Amino acid sequence: MARFVQITSVHNDKVKFVAELQQKSSLRRETGLAVVEGRREITHCMESGYEIQSLFLCRPMMDGSSLDVLNQCDCPCYDVSPDVYARMAYRGSTEGVIAIVKQKLIALDDLSFNSSPLVVVVESVEKPGNLGAVLRSAEAAAVDAMIVCDPKTDLYNPNLIRSSIGGVFRVPCVACTSEQCIHFLKARGIQILTAQLQDSELYYNTDMKRPTAIVMGTESTGLTNVWRDAADAHIRIPMNGALDSLNVSISAAILIFEAVRQRNL
Amino acid sequence: MARFVQITSVHNDKVKFVAELQQKSSLRRETGLAVVEGRREITHCMESGYEIQSLFLCRPMMDGSSLDVLNQCDCPCYDVSPDVYARMAYRGSTEGVIAIVKQKLIALDDLSFNSSPLVVVVESVEKPGNLGAVLRSAEAAAVDAMIVCDPKTDLYNPNLIRSSIGGVFRVPCVACTSEQCIHFLKARGIQILTAQLQDSELYYNTDMKRPTAIVMGTESTGLTNVWRDAADAHIRIPMNGALDSLNVSISAAILIFEAVRQRNL
Repeated sequence: MARFVQITSVHNDKVKFVAELQQKSSLRRETGLAVVEGRREITHCMESGYEIQSLFLCRPMMDGSSLDVLNQCDCPCYDVSPDVYARMAYRGSTEGVIAIVKQKLIALDDLSFNSSPLVVVVESVEKPGNLGAVLRSAEAAAVDAMIVCDPKTDLYNPNLIRSSIGGVFRVPCVACTSEQCIHFLKARGIQILTAQLQDSELYYNTDMKRPTAIVMGTESTGLTNVWRDAADAHIRIPMNGALDSLNVSISAAILIFEAVRQRNL
Repeated sequence: MARFVQITSVHNDKVKFVAELQQKSSLRRETGLAVVEGRREITHCMESGYEIQSLFLCRPMMDGSSLDVLNQCDCPCYDVSPDVYARMAYRGSTEGVIAIVKQKLIALDDLSFNSSPLVVVVESVEKPGNLGAVLRSAEAAAVDAMIVCDPKTDLYNPNLIRSSIGGVFRVPCVACTSEQCIHFLKARGIQILTAQLQDSELYYNTDMKRPTAIVMGTESTGLTNVWRDAADAHIRIPMNGALDSLNVSISAAILIFEAVRQRNL
């Protein structure tokens, strides 16, 4: 059963540590820990085998479903006051529960696939919110892995966790270089489809039933040449309006669910 | 040619008016005016026939392409200092140009369609950012109209304009009640496809080549019964993961581009 300790001071060392862990990717990297807020997100963590190191509870903010989280944990628990909670929380309404979890960092070689995997690759996407939104769609489509190449943000950025609605804990995620990723995909016989406007075919004319990696670049500059050169096909979403591009999370969802459509036919 | 007046005080009445117009939907409604920031957004306005009433320029923030906007306008122009600009601007980096434009409010009867229109309908979506993101995709797909039923936000909300990247000026947009919209769609012979999980078929098994309205509800509670009852078909995106839903802008994009795919075959 959980052990409970009261924390009422915002100057408590544990409180300051959580707040710092939210803000600093360097501290997340050094400690191998991450902060997860919200009943739903923590549940995704637990169900995906993450180890919960400690729980912070703000009882006045909790309802019955938040207590479920508590009943499934036997880690140290801290009861905190609303002002202490506010000091630690990245967002406002998260059902009064915050967890410190151990990161699970997996490598390319740890990925095991069925006979026709669907993989999503993003290169150097800057905005954690966009990366999280891609992960949310990837989870809903049950893609086999997400590979983040030359990342500009770590996978445990609070804004990424938030916008993925916990999907980051459900989808096997690997961070590596583009070169490592290309080598891996070719060795596994996974076709590389790069999303780009130039020299491309319409995405729905491309066979995505085969082992497939859908590769997306940054919103500002697109994919680097290493990906364009490595591609088996360049694919594009038709742009029929005056605007020049879609948000990367929108483009990713359209492409991922086209693969789902083809595979379900 | 444009006439230039200098404004250096943040207490100037025009500056206060712009700031208030950004913040208050009631003032936008009373005056029929809207604030548009950024070169790209203002260009979309002008190319879509919006009347620019006045321009505010912050020269130190402008580059050559921002000056293009100026050269295409003959409205009153105001040169403002960076602190004055900051007082008026909703977002940080908008190339130093802000315009006051006259809203174009159109009614259902103003919509004219080709033989097989594609219409996007959203009911009571709360977040302006989500509505703007739907509009961005709708514009990229060149849908014939977007109809916002029982709106919780006005179409000229600054966050909506921002996330639509100006798409709100390109796509014919109508605000009305759900009852009015349903009557309109049925009178025009446009099939109603409601996005919902219950009692639904997979979206890609539905014929979207016919005159079609794709109808989306709020993220929290989904569509109201008036729409479920009026539907010709209920359609769903397959959810293969543990998360229970996609963001409304993601779902909208998947459905809109499926219609594009079917129509381009």
